[in-house]
Amino acid sequence: MDRIVDLIRSKRYSEEISPEDYERLITGFTLDEIPDAQMGALLMAGVCNGFSANETNALTSAMLRCGEKLDLSEIDKVRVDCYSTGGVGDKTPLIAAPIAAAAGVAVPMIVERGTRHMIGSLEKLMAIPGFRTNLEVTDFADLVKEFGLAFAEQSESLAPADKRLYELRDETATLESIELIAASAMSKKLAEDLNGLIVDVKVSQDSLLSGRTEARRLAQQLISIGRKLGVKVQVLLTDMEQPLGHTVGNALEIMEVSQTLQGQGPTDLSGLAVELAARMIYISDTTISMDDAREKAASVIEDGSALQVLASVIGAQGGDPEVLTDFVKLPNPQGALPITSPRDGYVSKINAEDIGRAAVLLGGGWPGPGEEGQHDPAVGIVIEAKVGQQVFNNTGLCSLYYNDDTNLEEAQQLVEDAFRISSMEPQQRNLVIDVIQG
Amino acid sequence: MDRIVDLIRSKRYSEEISPEDYERLITGFTLDEIPDAQMGALLMAGVCNGFSANETNALTSAMLRCGEKLDLSEIDKVRVDCYSTGGVGDKTPLIAAPIAAAAGVAVPMIVERGTRHMIGSLEKLMAIPGFRTNLEVTDFADLVKEFGLAFAEQSESLAPADKRLYELRDETATLESIELIAASAMSKKLAEDLNGLIVDVKVSQDSLLSGRTEARRLAQQLISIGRKLGVKVQVLLTDMEQPLGHTVGNALEIMEVSQTLQGQGPTDLSGLAVELAARMIYISDTTISMDDAREKAASVIEDGSALQVLASVIGAQGGDPEVLTDFVKLPNPQGALPITSPRDGYVSKINAEDIGRAAVLLGGGWPGPGEEGQHDPAVGIVIEAKVGQQVFNNTGLCSLYYNDDTNLEEAQQLVEDAFRISSMEPQQRNLVIDVIQG
Repeated sequence: MDRIVDLIRSKRYSEEISPEDYERLITGFTLDEIPDAQMGALLMAGVCNGFSANETNALTSAMLRCGEKLDLSEIDKVRVDCYSTGGVGDKTPLIAAPIAAAAGVAVPMIVERGTRHMIGSLEKLMAIPGFRTNLEVTDFADLVKEFGLAFAEQSESLAPADKRLYELRDETATLESIELIAASAMSKKLAEDLNGLIVDVKVSQDSLLSGRTEARRLAQQLISIGRKLGVKVQVLLTDMEQPLGHTVGNALEIMEVSQTLQGQGPTDLSGLAVELAARMIYISDTTISMDDAREKAASVIEDGSALQVLASVIGAQGGDPEVLTDFVKLPNPQGALPITSPRDGYVSKINAEDIGRAAVLLGGGWPGPGEEGQHDPAVGIVIEAKVGQQVFNNTGLCSLYYNDDTNLEEAQQLVEDAFRISSMEPQQRNLVIDVIQG
Repeated sequence: MDRIVDLIRSKRYSEEISPEDYERLITGFTLDEIPDAQMGALLMAGVCNGFSANETNALTSAMLRCGEKLDLSEIDKVRVDCYSTGGVGDKTPLIAAPIAAAAGVAVPMIVERGTRHMIGSLEKLMAIPGFRTNLEVTDFADLVKEFGLAFAEQSESLAPADKRLYELRDETATLESIELIAASAMSKKLAEDLNGLIVDVKVSQDSLLSGRTEARRLAQQLISIGRKLGVKVQVLLTDMEQPLGHTVGNALEIMEVSQTLQGQGPTDLSGLAVELAARMIYISDTTISMDDAREKAASVIEDGSALQVLASVIGAQGGDPEVLTDFVKLPNPQGALPITSPRDGYVSKINAEDIGRAAVLLGGGWPGPGEEGQHDPAVGIVIEAKVGQQVFNNTGLCSLYYNDDTNLEEAQQLVEDAFRISSMEPQQRNLVIDVIQG
């Protein structure tokens, strides 16, 4: 049996590592038997020299087998989840999931923390007073059985390898790897005992994947792993040239989730959330057309049943469901700083990464490993003027909501620089760039 | 200021890291402020994508500045050391150093542990009862002033960065890198406050550097770093197709050091040791020719003064100098297992790595990080038939000396396979392949 250092050496010289050795590597790493230095070096060697399709599958399977898998075999619904590679202001999974659940799909959703300039679904849900996501695997399954929807965070038993590997990758500059992104996403999602998965791959200069070619490669990887492991995967490529919706922050985004589920959401966010939910419904039912699925999604918003599902799940997971209609029950910030346009013109771009970084500076993000700062669910940014909107000198562009003003000036600077005001009206762009099916 | 993860990302994308950032990296790593995972990933990214000449210089300087530097300015001798990239049975530095010292050169030698199949000069010296190498930097300097020679091991103050980096590289499959080998060697040797350095680069299929092209590249790197930092470097490329001399082991090699200093050493070992010592003398004195330097080296063996220098240093560093003439005072093994030739013929090759591994299996090596085993200074291998020697069925090839027979069979197997017996007399090879001067 090769020593771990010999496996690293193989990867360094671009040789393939066997499935059995990936199993040893992942199990050993998760059990703290393989030092971080070795795993960091191995990942970097792979990222520099590439992982083959076989290796990506082997890595995904090894990560999947490392934890427990939900058992939803008793449930008579089709299980479909949606996953986003992550964007600023992107709360679509929290909207699409209750819509799909209300339409009869079972949605067991593992949620996670954000990193860098991104706020994760986990932090957003934790802004709801009392809400808890650290569920036992069996409780998670029971909730899905009862409500068609539940939210759980990763734990020692639920997708533990991915959690530890992600932290390591974040620290070692190996996040940006199509193969590792694919293995990470799929190992986590496949632990949910799914039949189908809809993935929203963000395409933007500010995201981990800078171009459409890379986004398409990732889509193919996700579909291919899914096929290998028996899960139908469809991928949407979507534009991330500005934050999604009007809010960036934890409680602020929960508000917008609720507004959207009440049919009052911003166009871009509502459109994408309904599209994702419709795909979840479509993939779960071979007899339905995409148009009918869209109609179904719209109808469960219309009749209030999607909002009701979310309210029930919040209640069942210890939270106060009234936050969805009575926003004062959510954490509230003390201060607000309006940012206005420096001139007449049109908003032609809002740099999503800068807005995200500003929200994190205000306290809205989870501090990364080794970073300082306190997570504050109340703070964030509300964007008033989106791309395409005409503005005038001193028109409000957005507002910064804060409690602690330590980083306020730096955040303000970032946000002011994030807005580009042009004299020409910008061309309209489609939010959904492409749909890739297996 | 870039975060460490951003520096790793730069290296991942083949960008150069600045001297200031190398300073931060090395200092931070040595002070345990930068996690092993980050340093492991950075090294791997560099090893995959390459380090520029500027980076190699910057890395060497940063490692050098991390520890204390000897101050030998009071001494009126020229300071020259020799360094070997490491071979099986290679005790030449321990022979060349007292020869050069006896000829009037000051030799401040940092010695280190071996790794894998190699036994380091440090372990060999530690086979001498009472000998200690953990010296304070000032004591080290005082000994060199008094005797023209002293041996010290790396410590928290003496080349600490290299020690920690070497351990990390050993664990992460990043030992094999010309730039890292050069930076490691030079940062350590430059801490000795040298005027000149003779390097013996081993060329062998079994060494870190598999080919002559790579060995030449390393030589150029060493010379170039030396030039940058004011030390004259000359490099010998030497053949390592069989172990050097007759002994492999700790006490066994000390015996052979002594025999060679008494003019009784094996031809290959004596020849190389005298050549290295002569180069040290030659580089220290602009008025001497290489032929005269060789003669000088031979004369201090002849008159016993080289042996006397070594005896004095051993005594001054707490050891018993009588071990050099009375070998029973060295640790002695209990058992001996002779290995004989399976047929008539000529010894055409002795695989040095296999012999080294066998010696380590018997307990002669220092167990690596995470490896089990006890270091036993008494054990080792004595080679009776070297390459070119005619042997007959049942002629002795070598003997294994051991105390613990746990791994004896495995070691025997390795040693038997290491010897190649051919019917044709092999062509004679020159031990010194080339000399490269700055």
